Amino acid sequence: MAKADVAIIMGSQSDWPTMKHAAEVLDALGISYDARIVSAHRTPDRMYEFAKGAKAAGFKIIIAGAGGAAHLPGMTASLTPLPVFGVPVESKCLSGEDSLLSIVQMPGGIPVGTLAIGKAGATNAALLAAAVLALSDKLIEQKLEDFRSAKTASVGERPLDA
Amino acid sequence: MAKADVAIIMGSQSDWPTMKHAAEVLDALGISYDARIVSAHRTPDRMYEFAKGAKAAGFKIIIAGAGGAAHLPGMTASLTPLPVFGVPVESKCLSGEDSLLSIVQMPGGIPVGTLAIGKAGATNAALLAAAVLALSDKLIEQKLEDFRSAKTASVGERPLDA
Amino acid sequence: MAKADVAIIMGSQSDWPTMKHAAEVLDALGISYDARIVSAHRTPDRMYEFAKGAKAAGFKIIIAGAGGAAHLPGMTASLTPLPVFGVPVESKCLSGEDSLLSIVQMPGGIPVGTLAIGKAGATNAALLAAAVLALSDKLIEQKLEDFRSAKTASVGERPLDA
Amino acid sequence: MAKADVAIIMGSQSDWPTMKHAAEVLDALGISYDARIVSAHRTPDRMYEFAKGAKAAGFKIIIAGAGGAAHLPGMTASLTPLPVFGVPVESKCLSGEDSLLSIVQMPGGIPVGTLAIGKAGATNAALLAAAVLALSDKLIEQKLEDFRSAKTASVGERPLDA
Amino acid sequence: MAKADVAIIMGSQSDWPTMKHAAEVLDALGISYDARIVSAHRTPDRMYEFAKGAKAAGFKIIIAGAGGAAHLPGMTASLTPLPVFGVPVESKCLSGEDSLLSIVQMPGGIPVGTLAIGKAGATNAALLAAAVLALSDKLIEQKLEDFRSAKTASVGERPLDA
Amino acid sequence: MAKADVAIIMGSQSDWPTMKHAAEVLDALGISYDARIVSAHRTPDRMYEFAKGAKAAGFKIIIAGAGGAAHLPGMTASLTPLPVFGVPVESKCLSGEDSLLSIVQMPGGIPVGTLAIGKAGATNAALLAAAVLALSDKLIEQKLEDFRSAKTASVGERPLDA
Amino acid sequence: MAKADVAIIMGSQSDWPTMKHAAEVLDALGISYDARIVSAHRTPDRMYEFAKGAKAAGFKIIIAGAGGAAHLPGMTASLTPLPVFGVPVESKCLSGEDSLLSIVQMPGGIPVGTLAIGKAGATNAALLAAAVLALSDKLIEQKLEDFRSAKTASVGERPLDA
Amino acid sequence: MAKADVAIIMGSQSDWPTMKHAAEVLDALGISYDARIVSAHRTPDRMYEFAKGAKAAGFKIIIAGAGGAAHLPGMTASLTPLPVFGVPVESKCLSGEDSLLSIVQMPGGIPVGTLAIGKAGATNAALLAAAVLALSDKLIEQKLEDFRSAKTASVGERPLDA
Repeated sequence: MAKADVAIIMGSQSDWPTMKHAAEVLDALGISYDARIVSAHRTPDRMYEFAKGAKAAGFKIIIAGAGGAAHLPGMTASLTPLPVFGVPVESKCLSGEDSLLSIVQMPGGIPVGTLAIGKAGATNAALLAAAVLALSDKLIEQKLEDFRSAKTASVGERPLDA
Repeated sequence: MAKADVAIIMGSQSDWPTMKHAAEVLDALGISYDARIVSAHRTPDRMYEFAKGAKAAGFKIIIAGAGGAAHLPGMTASLTPLPVFGVPVESKCLSGEDSLLSIVQMPGGIPVGTLAIGKAGATNAALLAAAVLALSDKLIEQKLEDFRSAKTASVGERPLDA
Repeated sequence: MAKADVAIIMGSQSDWPTMKHAAEVLDALGISYDARIVSAHRTPDRMYEFAKGAKAAGFKIIIAGAGGAAHLPGMTASLTPLPVFGVPVESKCLSGEDSLLSIVQMPGGIPVGTLAIGKAGATNAALLAAAVLALSDKLIEQKLEDFRSAKTASVGERPLDA
Repeated sequence: MAKADVAIIMGSQSDWPTMKHAAEVLDALGISYDARIVSAHRTPDRMYEFAKGAKAAGFKIIIAGAGGAAHLPGMTASLTPLPVFGVPVESKCLSGEDSLLSIVQMPGGIPVGTLAIGKAGATNAALLAAAVLALSDKLIEQKLEDFRSAKTASVGERPLDA
Repeated sequence: MAKADVAIIMGSQSDWPTMKHAAEVLDALGISYDARIVSAHRTPDRMYEFAKGAKAAGFKIIIAGAGGAAHLPGMTASLTPLPVFGVPVESKCLSGEDSLLSIVQMPGGIPVGTLAIGKAGATNAALLAAAVLALSDKLIEQKLEDFRSAKTASVGERPLDA
Repeated sequence: MAKADVAIIMGSQSDWPTMKHAAEVLDALGISYDARIVSAHRTPDRMYEFAKGAKAAGFKIIIAGAGGAAHLPGMTASLTPLPVFGVPVESKCLSGEDSLLSIVQMPGGIPVGTLAIGKAGATNAALLAAAVLALSDKLIEQKLEDFRSAKTASVGERPLDA
Repeated sequence: MAKADVAIIMGSQSDWPTMKHAAEVLDALGISYDARIVSAHRTPDRMYEFAKGAKAAGFKIIIAGAGGAAHLPGMTASLTPLPVFGVPVESKCLSGEDSLLSIVQMPGGIPVGTLAIGKAGATNAALLAAAVLALSDKLIEQKLEDFRSAKTASVGERPLDA
Repeated sequence: MAKADVAIIMGSQSDWPTMKHAAEVLDALGISYDARIVSAHRTPDRMYEFAKGAKAAGFKIIIAGAGGAAHLPGMTASLTPLPVFGVPVESKCLSGEDSLLSIVQMPGGIPVGTLAIGKAGATNAALLAAAVLALSDKLIEQKLEDFRSAKTASVGERPLDA
């Protein structure tokens, strides 16, 4: 796999419409990433291999998205010393509440930094990864600052059709 | 490990006060079991090894209890073709609702037969295992029938202090 | 009724779009089944008769789906020594949370192995039934293994439109 | 069984501390009742027999209390044309939310008039039964009116230690 | 107002699509009713007047439907000795969970027999009213029995497109 | 009743341990109040009379606390043009979630400004009343400012036992 | 900014379709207002400046709407002595339950008078503001009374298509 | 303030029994930290000043704990480019569900990496901070690895009293 700073992994193809928002933010900030499908339940061997090798492969941060009984972020975190950020993908029946609790309620010892359910969470996982990388990368630090400033500047004073 | 029909696994020592109710039922029904701690998050390699080897080790059924972001039942189910029954252990803050959703909301492909939160669930996981074993074991079939008859007989007609 | 290994019962015609996913998996695995409507509330006599006679009729496993105040799985389990697997059907207002709790929170003594809400749960009830039958049927064991391998193989490495 | 206007049934001995509040109100209003344990899950035959025979036995109203996956009120309602009032008993883990949903979310066709979780619900089930009986019993009508007047009169004007 | 056995009241015009299912069942059973809008919040005087006068007006049972912070059933119950059955109307944001809790969680002293959220609840409120009236009306008793038998007979044996 | 700026009403004596925190804040700010028990369900006439007469009695703001199916704040708001602030009192079974939804989910037309569940909510209802009164009372404005400054000053820099 | 009695602030443009219902009510009551976007998270400086200066700018009441982790109402309340009324905007995944809890569960010391989720809440925030202003403004008092009377008068007696 | 890598901030003294678990882990890993009380609501100026100056003060990571309508983590994140990890402190009434949703459901643009409710979350916030610092600090990397190995080694094979 191509060397990259961030790995974006997700439980299935159906998570991509959510997780691509993380990819888009990383693109915008010039951060290299590798996006792949790693299913905790259907491809546990692939998950073990990936997570155990992630650090050696040069990744610095892992963003993991999953829905329902979402075990991918937590299991990945148990298999790597790298920081793992989890994105609860909205589920069909319970609106992502199951995804959220399955990701965030990790026991003491194995952390997953959990973001909001859905698109906002995917976007923010990328921004959090950027904030971490910015600690030792002046270029990312600057790009992140610009990104935030642009965001602030984009907020209009008045409701558009008020 | 001693050859046994049922494996009872749990995420931590603190799950034992709940899971021992499964052991007690199996004892009462004369079903062999092996109880051990296998933490999905703190000992992922042990879990991987255990689950991958469970069938070859002679187990027929796995009962897995865990709390919070409870990944043990589902991950075990992804690593073995054996039937897995999950017991949500009551959690400190959310009363086991997080445990329940983390166990039951498995994606299509990898089933975990989930029981009630807490002691009732542990008891029932053992009874469900017995019902499965009874399909091909006349002795267990008889003992289970006796167990259920005794249960029925034990229900009084009147509230005791009415 | 035709002799079959698995009975698929459901509370009403409207549960069939969910429960047929169990039938499809059993078809794919070459497991015989009998699908019928048995309403705990509208046809309690039929339920009693069915559940009491299920074992004598040759069934080995019962898959029961229901929604709302879903009593069918639990009541069936109270009337037969066979293993019962319950599928919470998504409800109109509460997204299946009522169905799930009504099925899974059984008291100690009468287990229902509960699967996820909706289609995933129906699929998994069939797979869990297959795992149970595979304990004493080499052919089903092999077919289930093939099914799982095919599932694993079907997981792509990369998001398709990434 | 002694002929009585109201049957109070409950799933287990442990429901009596809640359900006795129904009995106390009926006592206070001079309404005859019969309190017994009828477990939907552990004694389904007893439940079936009781519910099918309740009308012939002279009961006019059934009050049914149960907790967790509380099937007793709904199953009883499916087996008798008598009005059934359900009391969700507080459960250990989920505070009675599971009991409430299992009782109230009945499908169209089989009603259970559901009261509040716990003691208040048991008290109110008896008062609702009294209101029904008062429709054709002047004595109960008067006693109920007195009961309500006394209740109103008992409400102080000021907080006692204010 | 025309003399009728049952009053169907609701908080607003928008509750009618739900509450008309109660009216349809009463029509089918030949039970007289009066349907009207009585808003606890927008027309509190009308509610007071209606509820205080309901018994004198000849009503025997009140069916009250409301959504959100649904105060109509409980307030009506506090103002009349007649039995009140409450129907939680599905709310826009919280799926009727707010309606359900606002209706069912009445304090000890003032009961509201609560039915399921939405259409099923409206249907069942009418059936429960019929069961109450049947206690002293042989014709309604017979019609209700026929209604239930027809319901039972209508349940097919097999899923239609299985 | 003594003329006062704020009325503190509550559904029962058991709400006073919560609602007295409102009284204490008003005392501290030198705002006159009148605390009384007004039960929507047990004393609907008293509620009606109180709410209809509250403005004429000279009250400017009403603080209403209640638990469970908490109808007091909303019904009071429907009977008076005065601003009503509602305090959800913690309920035994559902932790005040039922109280909160019953108070806050008012339909468009009749507002209740709702505060947090329990003691914090009672405290804040009084502070919100003070903020309203401060709009036209310089003395209260000053006292409220002092109260807030003192609050700010009381926040230590460091955890005490760190 | 134009001097106005009420400030309507919201976290983003997407909150306007909800919050404009507050504006419409204020328009109908002849109350001056200023509607603007103030994002707690994207424009914290603007929020600080706005909230700190709101009183000096002549505002008397602030209506703040936000969704998800809705911090705008509470943070504004911590920065101004003016009364703040909060409107939980319906969120995509959790139906506004997150918005509601983030706004209403303020700690003792800083109140936010919280209204219902969505449109009803926005409407009611304006009516509550009007009720506050009416305490010292006879014209608004009269207009509010007319508004409420018209509302009451608009409630039909009968369901339109009954 | 003493220069430190990690800032631990919390909304009030009462959060310290939870947050000190973060401090203990950082102590164990030899990571410098500064623990202080910064209340979003009672000391908004202190929060503003702290968050705006955190980066210049040399902090690399901020751990923020709060309960109820927990605004501290999100507001801090809006005022600093540093990574912010949030710990939902268990609340009195809603078990921390309000704290969790108030922290995790941040809008796209401002991330808070959220950990579990309570002690486990505080422990994990420190471990996540360590994982981030370990990306550029070999000593912390080694200590974290040792910490995790010790944790794994500490998991017994068998339940102690089995």
